[in-house]
Amino acid sequence: MEAIRIFITGGTFDKAYNEIKGELYFKDTHLPEMLKLGRCTLDVEIRTLMMVDSLEMTDSDRQMIVSNCKKVKEERIIITHGTDTMVETAKALAEANIDKTIVLTGAMIPYKFGSSDGFFNLGNSLAYAETLDNGVYVVMNGRYFNWDNVRKNRKTGFFEELN
Amino acid sequence: MEAIRIFITGGTFDKAYNEIKGELYFKDTHLPEMLKLGRCTLDVEIRTLMMVDSLEMTDSDRQMIVSNCKKVKEERIIITHGTDTMVETAKALAEANIDKTIVLTGAMIPYKFGSSDGFFNLGNSLAYAETLDNGVYVVMNGRYFNWDNVRKNRKTGFFEELN
Amino acid sequence: MEAIRIFITGGTFDKAYNEIKGELYFKDTHLPEMLKLGRCTLDVEIRTLMMVDSLEMTDSDRQMIVSNCKKVKEERIIITHGTDTMVETAKALAEANIDKTIVLTGAMIPYKFGSSDGFFNLGNSLAYAETLDNGVYVVMNGRYFNWDNVRKNRKTGFFEELN
Amino acid sequence: MEAIRIFITGGTFDKAYNEIKGELYFKDTHLPEMLKLGRCTLDVEIRTLMMVDSLEMTDSDRQMIVSNCKKVKEERIIITHGTDTMVETAKALAEANIDKTIVLTGAMIPYKFGSSDGFFNLGNSLAYAETLDNGVYVVMNGRYFNWDNVRKNRKTGFFEELN
Repeated sequence: MEAIRIFITGGTFDKAYNEIKGELYFKDTHLPEMLKLGRCTLDVEIRTLMMVDSLEMTDSDRQMIVSNCKKVKEERIIITHGTDTMVETAKALAEANIDKTIVLTGAMIPYKFGSSDGFFNLGNSLAYAETLDNGVYVVMNGRYFNWDNVRKNRKTGFFEELN
Repeated sequence: MEAIRIFITGGTFDKAYNEIKGELYFKDTHLPEMLKLGRCTLDVEIRTLMMVDSLEMTDSDRQMIVSNCKKVKEERIIITHGTDTMVETAKALAEANIDKTIVLTGAMIPYKFGSSDGFFNLGNSLAYAETLDNGVYVVMNGRYFNWDNVRKNRKTGFFEELN
Repeated sequence: MEAIRIFITGGTFDKAYNEIKGELYFKDTHLPEMLKLGRCTLDVEIRTLMMVDSLEMTDSDRQMIVSNCKKVKEERIIITHGTDTMVETAKALAEANIDKTIVLTGAMIPYKFGSSDGFFNLGNSLAYAETLDNGVYVVMNGRYFNWDNVRKNRKTGFFEELN
Repeated sequence: MEAIRIFITGGTFDKAYNEIKGELYFKDTHLPEMLKLGRCTLDVEIRTLMMVDSLEMTDSDRQMIVSNCKKVKEERIIITHGTDTMVETAKALAEANIDKTIVLTGAMIPYKFGSSDGFFNLGNSLAYAETLDNGVYVVMNGRYFNWDNVRKNRKTGFFEELN
C-alpha cells in the first residue's frame, strides 16, 4: 500500500453555506471528516493548495498545482477540483509529463448537501489512485477517464468520453 | 469499460429501521438509490441473492453465492455482505477457483444512518472491481485486501492484514 | 384541533441546489415531504403563493399574501418566508387587522442541507400556530416574537426582541 | 419567556448505532446538539435522568421522574421518552397533581437516522411547553394530546385520541 497525497483546490465539493450572507462559500475542506466517516485506513496526506471555484482558476493557479504534484514525494495523487475546468487542469498536468498517477475528482453537489455525490467520488478516486498506472485521469460518475478523452457535458452534468 | 455485476446478500449496509417494532431489519436494498446519488454511469447490473445478517449465513447460502458468481456472464463482480463473515465467504469463493475479479464489501453502519461508511465503500469497491486482476478481494476502510490476508478486528471494527 | 393553512412564499427554507448551474435556486417546496417525515397528523392545507428570495419581495407580493390570509377559511396560518424581510411582511399583515393567528417562519440554512434548522422550525411553528391567540408572530430560534417586538440581527443571524 | 426544563429518559429518540456489536444502544443524549442545530435561544436546562428503552421502565423509574418534576424549579417541563409507555408515565405524572406544564415527547425513528421525526418533535414540544396551560400532555405527530385521551396505535405507530 503506497501513500496517497490529496491536494485540495476547492470546487463544489467543499462549498459550505454561509447562513449570514445566504450564499455558498469556501470555509475549510471537509476531506478529513470524510476520510474519518469512510473509516479509511489508507496512508493519506492532505494539503490545501487553494479554495477556489474552478471557473476562477487562473493559469498561475494551475502551474502551482503542477509544481506541487512534481515536488511532493508521493507517487499517487488525488486533486479535488471544481468540475467546470477539471479537464483543463488535467491537460496542464499531462503536458508537464509527471511520472505519477494523478487523479482529479470533484462533486456535482456540495458534500454538506444531503444529496451530494462527493463521498462516493472520494471512495471511488482513492481506489483508482491506488490501482491505475502512471498517467492523468478524471474520476467522476464512478468511472475513470483518460485526461485526453473526457469532457463535462454542461447540459446533463455528466462526464463523457470524446470518442 | 466492462460491465459490473452487483450481488446483494444483506449485511449492515442494507439494514433499515422498523419503526413499529423498534428494531433494525431488512427491507429492500438501497443500492439502486445509492448508484443514482453517486451519479454512476458504469454499466452495473444488480441482483438480490438474499437479505441476511452475515452471522446467520449458512454454508448453503455461500454455495449459492459461489454458483451465482460462476454462472453470471459478467467478469467483474461486487458482493455486498455483512462484515462479520465476509472473510469466510471470500474463502469459499477463492476455493471455487472462479476466473473473475470478485470484490466483497459492506458497511459498519447502516447506509440510512447519517454516519454510514456505505456510500464511500460503494464508490471504493466499484473502482477496485474495475481495475484489479482476477482474484477474490475484501474492500473495506478504503483499501482492498487479498482474501487470504485479511481479518476483521472485532474489537476495533477495522479490517487488517494477517501479516 | 383546528385546521392550519400553510402559505409558501420561498426563502432559504426551500432553496435547492442546481447542480448544472452550481447555484441555489427555487424548485418545489419541501413542505409536504417534511410534514410526512414529521409524521404530522394535524389537519394542514398547503398552498404555494410564490417562490422568492425575501430580499426581492415587493409590496404587491406582500399585498397578495395579506389578501390570501384574509380570504382563506382557516383561522390559523403559517407563512414560510425568507428571514431577511420576514418582519416587514409581519408588519404588513398586522396593519391589515386580520382576526386570525398568523405565524411567519423560515430557516437560516436550506432544508436540504444537513445542518438546516428548517425541520425544527416547522415543528415549532405548527405548535405556536395551534396555541397562540389571534395576532401576527415571527417564529424562529424555538421562540415566538410579537410582530412589533422583533428584529433579525444581521450580524449573528439570530432573531431578538427590540426591548 | 419562561425557562424550560428538559428531562432525558432515553427512548428511540436517543438510540445510537453500536458499530462493533451491530445493534442500537444508548450512549449520550443528542439533545444539546439538536438545540444548537435548531438555533434555539429559549432558556433551556437539560438533565439526563436515565437512558432506557421505555418497555423496560419500572414503577420506581416513573416515581423518580415524578419526583424530579416536582422538585425542579422550572414550571415548564419536557420529558423525552420511549413511545411505547409514554402514556403510562403521563398517567403517573397526572396522578401526582403537579401544578406545572409537563410535555412528554419522543421519536418513532432514532434521531441519527436520516428519516427521524425527532428534530421536528423537539421543535414542536418546545412550543407546546411554552404555551399550554398547566397539565400533562403527550406531544407526537405535530399535535398535543391530553394525558387521559391518548393512546399509541401499535399497528400504525401513530398516536390517536381515545374519543
